[in-house]
Amino acid sequence: MKPHHNPRVTLVGAGPGDPELISIKGMKAIQSADAILYDALAGKELLDFAPAHCTKLNVGKRGGCISHQQSTINGLIVHCANKYGHVVRLKGGDPFVFGRGYEEIVYAEERGIKTTVVPGISSSISVPALEGIPLTVRGINESFWVTTATLSSGELSNDIKLAASSSATIVILMGLQKIKEIMEIFKSNDKHHVPVAVIQNGSLSTQKIALGHVDTIVQEVQQQQIASPAIIVVGEVVKLHKDFEREAFMQMVLQAAQ
Amino acid sequence: MKPHHNPRVTLVGAGPGDPELISIKGMKAIQSADAILYDALAGKELLDFAPAHCTKLNVGKRGGCISHQQSTINGLIVHCANKYGHVVRLKGGDPFVFGRGYEEIVYAEERGIKTTVVPGISSSISVPALEGIPLTVRGINESFWVTTATLSSGELSNDIKLAASSSATIVILMGLQKIKEIMEIFKSNDKHHVPVAVIQNGSLSTQKIALGHVDTIVQEVQQQQIASPAIIVVGEVVKLHKDFEREAFMQMVLQAAQ
Repeated sequence: MKPHHNPRVTLVGAGPGDPELISIKGMKAIQSADAILYDALAGKELLDFAPAHCTKLNVGKRGGCISHQQSTINGLIVHCANKYGHVVRLKGGDPFVFGRGYEEIVYAEERGIKTTVVPGISSSISVPALEGIPLTVRGINESFWVTTATLSSGELSNDIKLAASSSATIVILMGLQKIKEIMEIFKSNDKHHVPVAVIQNGSLSTQKIALGHVDTIVQEVQQQQIASPAIIVVGEVVKLHKDFEREAFMQMVLQAAQ
Repeated sequence: MKPHHNPRVTLVGAGPGDPELISIKGMKAIQSADAILYDALAGKELLDFAPAHCTKLNVGKRGGCISHQQSTINGLIVHCANKYGHVVRLKGGDPFVFGRGYEEIVYAEERGIKTTVVPGISSSISVPALEGIPLTVRGINESFWVTTATLSSGELSNDIKLAASSSATIVILMGLQKIKEIMEIFKSNDKHHVPVAVIQNGSLSTQKIALGHVDTIVQEVQQQQIASPAIIVVGEVVKLHKDFEREAFMQMVLQAAQ
């Protein structure tokens, strides 16, 4: 088969989940796509922007029947660009935040394919915001630190230990499986009473939140039946959530009743 | 005057500057606005989405003739909501990242006005991405730390000192005026050779970049005549910029010629 005369890849951030949180530029890229390779975390409704002839492939690493290796995805991107022309690689959140988007872009570029990046709204910032939790507030803190819990080695990131000793708001992505271990780190930094929020399915109608403190959040997560994908936010700014005072009050009531 | 029957405020993140990097939801909010209060950093082209009757007010804190106090902006938002109905408060980047957006929302809510937040693409992540610098790359680092250099007190944030001792990619917003002081902190942490990028007007056609190391970046910024608004990125990931090796090579050539 003759390769396409103009193979190209646009790496697009789909945003946190709500399809209307994609950028106009991202939407336009989909509208001109000949093929779309999308992730589990990218909203399916976004595929409706694609033209009728567009080939759509789910290459998500979870949720589906087939688990795709990163090397398979890299190969598919190049194959589709050469076969169809304009490939949109659609990833949840921002494609350059823990997304392996950079690896995909470099792999394609090394094979002579033109690439473009369209940033997305990162869940790390927007999911707390949509729950009314700003990551920084004048007078409370001056920085935020975004980290992942899951390393390729399976170990807990050492940066979480560093972050726990700082005054930054800490956002942990892909950390729910290890929340107990993570909270132990904060406890060993004497941060038992720092407020914590765990938010599942941020920006979607199925959004759920558990609120508590370093000492209590594991129990809250169980009670609220929070599951992945979820984001953990640790810091004084969590107190600004509208339900937080009520929550704190409930804790007092429960403790008094014991 | 009779107050509007349905006063409400939508806090919208305009993204890093390119008007097409606003979200679909943000664009729709502007399309239904009765009044827009916008910042210096929000792209003016976005105002074209507004209906003909919409009142447009520049409340930017720089660049214009008048410098607005935060209290004046808060008051204006409430005044406009009561007078016109749907106010869009349009802010550059994401409205909850060092933006005082939270204060504005709370001020309005306390006066009985309904508020909504539409997140935006934060410059902290997207501006490096558009220069081909991912904030995290598997095998290089596991986290990024976003901080501001400028505190209300005029002091340099203490978090920069903490961040300089970590392995995170560090993004410093509003820091160009203090770049010399900031680099001294990294030097005192023995990070002389860590790569640094300073990016002005990210996402716009006027985008400019200076690349170097902790030891050399101040000179590079002067040579490239980089001015505010600019973002500083410090970390090994900066090496992934397409011009970095060329830059490093040029440094070697220049040093050999001395």
